[in-house]
Amino acid sequence: MKERSKLLGFRKDIKVVDATLRDGGLVNDFYFTDEFVNDLYITNIKAGVDYMEFGYRGDKSMFDVNKFGKWKFCNDEDIRAIVGDNNTDLKIAIMADVGRCDYKNDIHDRSESPVDLIRVATYLHQLPTAIDIIEDSYKKGYETTCNIMALSNAQEGDLQVALDELGKSPVNTIYIVDSFGSLYPEQVARMADTFMEFAEKYDKKIGIHAHNNQQLAFANTIEAVGDGVDWLDGTYAEMGRGAGNCAMELLLGFLKNPKYNIYPAIEFVEKHMRKLKEDGIVWGYDLQYLMTGLLNQHPRTAIDFTKNKRTDYAEFYKEVVIHD
Amino acid sequence: MKERSKLLGFRKDIKVVDATLRDGGLVNDFYFTDEFVNDLYITNIKAGVDYMEFGYRGDKSMFDVNKFGKWKFCNDEDIRAIVGDNNTDLKIAIMADVGRCDYKNDIHDRSESPVDLIRVATYLHQLPTAIDIIEDSYKKGYETTCNIMALSNAQEGDLQVALDELGKSPVNTIYIVDSFGSLYPEQVARMADTFMEFAEKYDKKIGIHAHNNQQLAFANTIEAVGDGVDWLDGTYAEMGRGAGNCAMELLLGFLKNPKYNIYPAIEFVEKHMRKLKEDGIVWGYDLQYLMTGLLNQHPRTAIDFTKNKRTDYAEFYKEVVIHD
Repeated sequence: MKERSKLLGFRKDIKVVDATLRDGGLVNDFYFTDEFVNDLYITNIKAGVDYMEFGYRGDKSMFDVNKFGKWKFCNDEDIRAIVGDNNTDLKIAIMADVGRCDYKNDIHDRSESPVDLIRVATYLHQLPTAIDIIEDSYKKGYETTCNIMALSNAQEGDLQVALDELGKSPVNTIYIVDSFGSLYPEQVARMADTFMEFAEKYDKKIGIHAHNNQQLAFANTIEAVGDGVDWLDGTYAEMGRGAGNCAMELLLGFLKNPKYNIYPAIEFVEKHMRKLKEDGIVWGYDLQYLMTGLLNQHPRTAIDFTKNKRTDYAEFYKEVVIHD
Repeated sequence: MKERSKLLGFRKDIKVVDATLRDGGLVNDFYFTDEFVNDLYITNIKAGVDYMEFGYRGDKSMFDVNKFGKWKFCNDEDIRAIVGDNNTDLKIAIMADVGRCDYKNDIHDRSESPVDLIRVATYLHQLPTAIDIIEDSYKKGYETTCNIMALSNAQEGDLQVALDELGKSPVNTIYIVDSFGSLYPEQVARMADTFMEFAEKYDKKIGIHAHNNQQLAFANTIEAVGDGVDWLDGTYAEMGRGAGNCAMELLLGFLKNPKYNIYPAIEFVEKHMRKLKEDGIVWGYDLQYLMTGLLNQHPRTAIDFTKNKRTDYAEFYKEVVIHD
């Protein structure tokens, strides 16, 4: 049992990261209105959120700019149009996806950019490239995180090698990413222990990015808080790929640091997130995501099930069990 | 951190209780079709569920039988029409609500009834009546549980007196009930420790009944499993008052005892629970329930908000904060 004091105190090192545009963009191909993005920026400032992730810096030679909204690419000038000089306490993040980002050319010096933080998303086997992006971004003046995806499928031995390599790199924060929404809180606790060991050795911070396949995204996030994890990802109305993420409004309600406010989050959800759902954008917990989470599978089959408006859950269960 | 073995092993003492008709009945005034109840009974048998709660044995001098479906009253003959002699491993439960049940007259000898278990729901201050129902039911031949509601508002000293009294009574199982959906897993762990102390002293079992106001019903239930709690309430598609309960299909997916099967649960949700939602029956996590949960309030204001089809979450937040 954790210490009683933890539920009434707070750690100043906690950082809340809004990933709505980035993970939510995977649901609507990044077609957010400028009003949405403007209001989200203002909401994050009012709510005390620490970082706002605007999207991916996708490689335009790989992705057709006519098939995605602008936050798939996050041009510096598009961010600047929202944040100006960003004279606020809210820092700006973008994601560089290993193998899908021309980082050498598309990430410019921080002095020329409104961006503060480059979040490097990688699978374990892509680690050398991830570290190259981290070093490149560090030299250009950015803070960096490394988000190791699909951890529920990683071998513990491989993970330890990766954490050692990342420890020696200039990365600031290393993320536990439960891409498949398959981890239970006890497994998060065990994983956090492994990560914290390297964090303490190399003076790094640890973060968590959860998915809600088993209605555990918030529970796993606050479990991680109790285990010493400081960087917490949330999205408004849990908007994110498939079953979505840890709801920002749950997280802001939980955190005790007086700098965080839930009220602006409620206003934002009322104004914008309900509308997205009414417009037919679909995300969030449902049985098909429970199944892929339970089976520790990538949610792509469940996303297809959702897109095809299927409701034959039992048939889908047989499909995913057969292809397990 | 809990033992690693716990996630791959299982405890034979675990009992799963389906509370769909009883807690779900609070959403639709107990108007379930006979086909629904028949299929639910068969599903529970196939899924390996241990107890099926049919509803309340409500006092007909207090409640108009024309204003509720029959599971508000759970006549023995209505249950018998579904289960016959119930020659299965599934046991039958009903709830006796303190102050709303004429138990002396309406609960008959077990030898004349298809019911195996009387679940006594009580607030802490009603404990003497609860114990009278427990003793009465015990003498009539039933198993009993005592479900102590609104625990998040209880004083720890009062709770310890109650647990001592219940320990001396013939009750079999004592429930942690998070009526307001306000408890975090760390608080459940702490509460389970208190309950387990008395359970060991008096040879009782402990149960948990959770609500999903903060998307923690399942997380709190599996936290409790790790803390030694054996009786676990679930409802299909989490159907229950307000934000609903721990989803049966999540629970069956988590439990490792081979007797439990998730597939019949998926079939049932596909056939029946989707239809209820399409028919306009509304339950489940939403911002208004988050707010009352966060503020540790009874969800009645949030239920009114839902019934009135309001969507002005920010205005509602101001109302509940002002009336806190």
